Amino acid sequence: MTNPPLRIGLIGTGRIGQVHAANIASNPEATLSWIADPFVAGAEALAARHGGRATDDPEQLLTSGGVDAVLVASPTATHIDLIARSIDLGLPVLCEKPIDLDIARVDALRPRVAAAQVPVALGFNRRFDPAFASVRARVASGEIGDLEQLTIISRDPSAPPADYIAGSGGIFRDMTIHDFDMARFFLPDIVEVQATGTTTFDEGARLHGDFDTAVCTLRTASGAIVTIINSRHSAVGYDQRIEAFGGRGHLSVANAPSSLVSLSTSKSVEAKPPYETFFLERYARAYAVELDEFVKLVRGESSTSPSFEDGRAALVLAEAAQRSAVDRVAVTVDLG
Amino acid sequence: MTNPPLRIGLIGTGRIGQVHAANIASNPEATLSWIADPFVAGAEALAARHGGRATDDPEQLLTSGGVDAVLVASPTATHIDLIARSIDLGLPVLCEKPIDLDIARVDALRPRVAAAQVPVALGFNRRFDPAFASVRARVASGEIGDLEQLTIISRDPSAPPADYIAGSGGIFRDMTIHDFDMARFFLPDIVEVQATGTTTFDEGARLHGDFDTAVCTLRTASGAIVTIINSRHSAVGYDQRIEAFGGRGHLSVANAPSSLVSLSTSKSVEAKPPYETFFLERYARAYAVELDEFVKLVRGESSTSPSFEDGRAALVLAEAAQRSAVDRVAVTVDLG
Amino acid sequence: MTNPPLRIGLIGTGRIGQVHAANIASNPEATLSWIADPFVAGAEALAARHGGRATDDPEQLLTSGGVDAVLVASPTATHIDLIARSIDLGLPVLCEKPIDLDIARVDALRPRVAAAQVPVALGFNRRFDPAFASVRARVASGEIGDLEQLTIISRDPSAPPADYIAGSGGIFRDMTIHDFDMARFFLPDIVEVQATGTTTFDEGARLHGDFDTAVCTLRTASGAIVTIINSRHSAVGYDQRIEAFGGRGHLSVANAPSSLVSLSTSKSVEAKPPYETFFLERYARAYAVELDEFVKLVRGESSTSPSFEDGRAALVLAEAAQRSAVDRVAVTVDLG
Amino acid sequence: MTNPPLRIGLIGTGRIGQVHAANIASNPEATLSWIADPFVAGAEALAARHGGRATDDPEQLLTSGGVDAVLVASPTATHIDLIARSIDLGLPVLCEKPIDLDIARVDALRPRVAAAQVPVALGFNRRFDPAFASVRARVASGEIGDLEQLTIISRDPSAPPADYIAGSGGIFRDMTIHDFDMARFFLPDIVEVQATGTTTFDEGARLHGDFDTAVCTLRTASGAIVTIINSRHSAVGYDQRIEAFGGRGHLSVANAPSSLVSLSTSKSVEAKPPYETFFLERYARAYAVELDEFVKLVRGESSTSPSFEDGRAALVLAEAAQRSAVDRVAVTVDLG
Repeated sequence: MTNPPLRIGLIGTGRIGQVHAANIASNPEATLSWIADPFVAGAEALAARHGGRATDDPEQLLTSGGVDAVLVASPTATHIDLIARSIDLGLPVLCEKPIDLDIARVDALRPRVAAAQVPVALGFNRRFDPAFASVRARVASGEIGDLEQLTIISRDPSAPPADYIAGSGGIFRDMTIHDFDMARFFLPDIVEVQATGTTTFDEGARLHGDFDTAVCTLRTASGAIVTIINSRHSAVGYDQRIEAFGGRGHLSVANAPSSLVSLSTSKSVEAKPPYETFFLERYARAYAVELDEFVKLVRGESSTSPSFEDGRAALVLAEAAQRSAVDRVAVTVDLG
Repeated sequence: MTNPPLRIGLIGTGRIGQVHAANIASNPEATLSWIADPFVAGAEALAARHGGRATDDPEQLLTSGGVDAVLVASPTATHIDLIARSIDLGLPVLCEKPIDLDIARVDALRPRVAAAQVPVALGFNRRFDPAFASVRARVASGEIGDLEQLTIISRDPSAPPADYIAGSGGIFRDMTIHDFDMARFFLPDIVEVQATGTTTFDEGARLHGDFDTAVCTLRTASGAIVTIINSRHSAVGYDQRIEAFGGRGHLSVANAPSSLVSLSTSKSVEAKPPYETFFLERYARAYAVELDEFVKLVRGESSTSPSFEDGRAALVLAEAAQRSAVDRVAVTVDLG
Repeated sequence: MTNPPLRIGLIGTGRIGQVHAANIASNPEATLSWIADPFVAGAEALAARHGGRATDDPEQLLTSGGVDAVLVASPTATHIDLIARSIDLGLPVLCEKPIDLDIARVDALRPRVAAAQVPVALGFNRRFDPAFASVRARVASGEIGDLEQLTIISRDPSAPPADYIAGSGGIFRDMTIHDFDMARFFLPDIVEVQATGTTTFDEGARLHGDFDTAVCTLRTASGAIVTIINSRHSAVGYDQRIEAFGGRGHLSVANAPSSLVSLSTSKSVEAKPPYETFFLERYARAYAVELDEFVKLVRGESSTSPSFEDGRAALVLAEAAQRSAVDRVAVTVDLG
Repeated sequence: MTNPPLRIGLIGTGRIGQVHAANIASNPEATLSWIADPFVAGAEALAARHGGRATDDPEQLLTSGGVDAVLVASPTATHIDLIARSIDLGLPVLCEKPIDLDIARVDALRPRVAAAQVPVALGFNRRFDPAFASVRARVASGEIGDLEQLTIISRDPSAPPADYIAGSGGIFRDMTIHDFDMARFFLPDIVEVQATGTTTFDEGARLHGDFDTAVCTLRTASGAIVTIINSRHSAVGYDQRIEAFGGRGHLSVANAPSSLVSLSTSKSVEAKPPYETFFLERYARAYAVELDEFVKLVRGESSTSPSFEDGRAALVLAEAAQRSAVDRVAVTVDLG
């Protein structure tokens, strides 16, 4: 590879921004050239560790001339403006999900993204998980026949703080959005959404009118059905499973074991330690591949990066789910 | 045990009738005293093998004075009349599911059953499966905390003939009805049903306006959610799994392995033979326990036999699912 | 099948005799015609349950004219005489293992068995276990290439009483003998035995100079190696595993799960209940097939019943193991 | 941590040297300061990638004044001299296994190592594998009672070239040596070795009088038995399993899955992709921890690094196994 490393400007240095910074630094095809965060100490700490210049002003980063591409890992409310400004400046963007909590604002940006000369990628990291990607490829190869049912179990280890819930846009926009994208990763032609949400254990959800438990059923034009089962907590740790059921068999993704050890006694046998704690551990590899694919996208090479349209489609499904959960009807969607 | 064996009259000698006949014959607490089937050769064959007198007329069986209890395994359309006649004669009944395809006819019988001096039990065999029964008992003991989500995967090995579909009452009344009862076995207070059905592979279903693929979501008064995932076919064989998810963990029932052998090669590792073929194999033990519990019920002992009301409740849920699948709305139910 | 049922005379009504009685009674090809035990109440109890005539005198059974074949489940010390008397009377025999604890007595009987007009089968029940039999057939079919290593883990749930140990002939003749036969089931051409035995937990073994823990290594003429790992106790229950390792892969037999249920919590995941308690449960099916094959053997049909020579060969290996464990040398054997 | 990074000089840049170089470079407590290899291009390539100065002369590295500790990853025949020279110069050493193929040469060095002011650590990487280390800690905690049997299955993916075999010292010194150390990791007080080796598939082994298949049985003073099952090839990939069997249960280490995906069809169910290819993949984490522990050892902190004596003990067991395999007797050993 004779390309010079892609100079990436990172905006946002929270938990996920730190993951991206480390991955950029260790990727031979990329270099961390600028880091912006209004909380400038966060930017400086990352710069000290992984290189790059720190600033408290994203605009300085974007107009520095020292970045070839932008990675947006700042709070959701800033995404739209940062995407818009980046593409106006001709800078490709990888933006964390969701694009925004308000579909109207997303739709307002949509034509500008479509007309832009540079790509906008969405940070749906799970698409890059080796297990999910492998199942999708094997389904696409016809190994299990037509895909008739996709079952996604997706549960977080524990509910977020009540404050987080307040600004999250609700479980469908905040948490299920990953599963909606996974559904579309396998079955893009979704035409209808049914959802049920309840509040059974989390005071934060109760306080802010959100659900802590939810099940969504998506139907495709061809009759395939996707079932998404969510909970805001899980005693065993992060619970991330998929079953792709086809006419000739099914492919399953199990939870990642945290150890190869099992214990057998007179009380129980083959007992294993609990699963990987949370997404940073479970999807560590996926974030690295996500970056690889974004670099390829920027370079005009064949890439599997999800697009702005993928980000919007997931949000449309989340909107539909929220409406279905409240109005108790199935909601048709048009993702075209 | 000093009780004389319970003399059981069996009506119907099809596949499931034959299972019951063998179980009655091998149960020390029961004896097969009469067998009725309009196709009298079937009754005679079972009598030759397991004892008892054969007749082509159920009425002869019921009025013979030689039966202490009746097991109804005849076609669904005959169930209502046979239950009614049995209880009028003071004979306890174990009736195969469903009671009837028409809820109005069930409701018409309901007060007579309620007023009867003898018990009517429904043949929801899965309640007696050692694995499902164990999970329910452990959930009830509080081992996993409050039950928040119940996920039932239930797929038949292959679709029935188109003729069968025609008279089946549709997938919800014919197949999902077992899963509705399993849902109520764990969570009796269901208040709402959502369903999605599609037709993706089975010509018989398409011909008769039925679904071959379906997902139901049930909500309880307390906010627990049950998800039922059905298909009329399954390449791996009979697919019968449950996950009970609670606040402190989950209990899972896996498919029954057909062998203890696994193969590991350079192509794949730990590959096992396919699962048990169908319900007669998978639930062999459950049918035997079902009979044990019916004997206890007839004798006035403590018994876990599901009741006529359980049979009706499952049918109410099936009706609601059918309506939800067609009208695309959630349907509230009152099982009180 | 138009053959009349084979009339079997059962000698011995202990734990294993009771298993055989039940299997004979439920096998359509056999009938339990006579039962002999010096403890005549045991014989009478089995006769009351499964049919047949009871006696306290095996000679009466053998000369009654009412038996077509004999099943010997009496104490080991009586086996030689009962086999000899049966074949002299022209009666085929199925004899429980071992033939005798003294190889000299076995060798003395050997020519008479070889010259007999009727077959003598040995009760190596594990050969008939569906899992082991399947692995052997698949190995024989070449599915994993040449068989290079066979690993047998065989542990009893708990040590027998000290009195039993005293008369058992030691762990190799009493317990490992099943594993020696299993080794020969896969690899008949064993030429050398190495063994190590220790006494680590069982006072009975210590008292009578026996081992409670043992490992044997058998070498075949072709260079395959069999490893047998034994313990007189196992906290998880009966531990019976096999791995057949070949040039193209391996086939494994896992322990039989006692339930399909698993529990996942914050402490451990996928924990299952302990295994089947002991051989009566684990090998229930094997005992039934053993009888089927013996009936075929008696009828001159193709049969997989192990022979007197198989019984002797296992004993030769046990002798060699005992010598190796004491003298600390490898012992060559000639099973020809 | 305020310590300056430990300056490590790496001798040898083959496959394993490259692993160590990468780990040193990415360990914040260490830095790669010098790299020596007579094949200087190898040293230069590593220096270009990970830093440090390259030389074709280990003596230059050792006397440069620029190294605080030495990592010896050169051919086995050079180990003794490099250890000796390093400790004479006051430099701590981490040396790859084995110390030497000739126990006499090891014993000649032994007193000098014992008298040295600096530590010598041996590269038994498997001790640092999280799974094995966890099992050992849990055994030590008493979780499964007294350890009575340890079973190690250890098979390489495929046999090395015949040339490698020629200079390897034989399977016991070359391959089983890791398992001997693992045995001592759990049970240090081994007093006797029995071994059987055969040659069944590998022409290289046959040509050079080596074995390709072997089983060793080790006995401890307390009566525990270790079984080691080796093969030079394995169709499924690197096969590395352990079972620690105690009076109250057992702890098992399974092979590392290469994917979370499993496939279920009408032919087989729950089939997973083959295991991790070989030691670089399987023990990647172990090599990193090995370095951490060596840094601690050098700094005089509490460390679990195996010692020169551990390296010698494994070699004594290998010698004994070779003798047992040839002479067909059990060989007593004195590891004191």
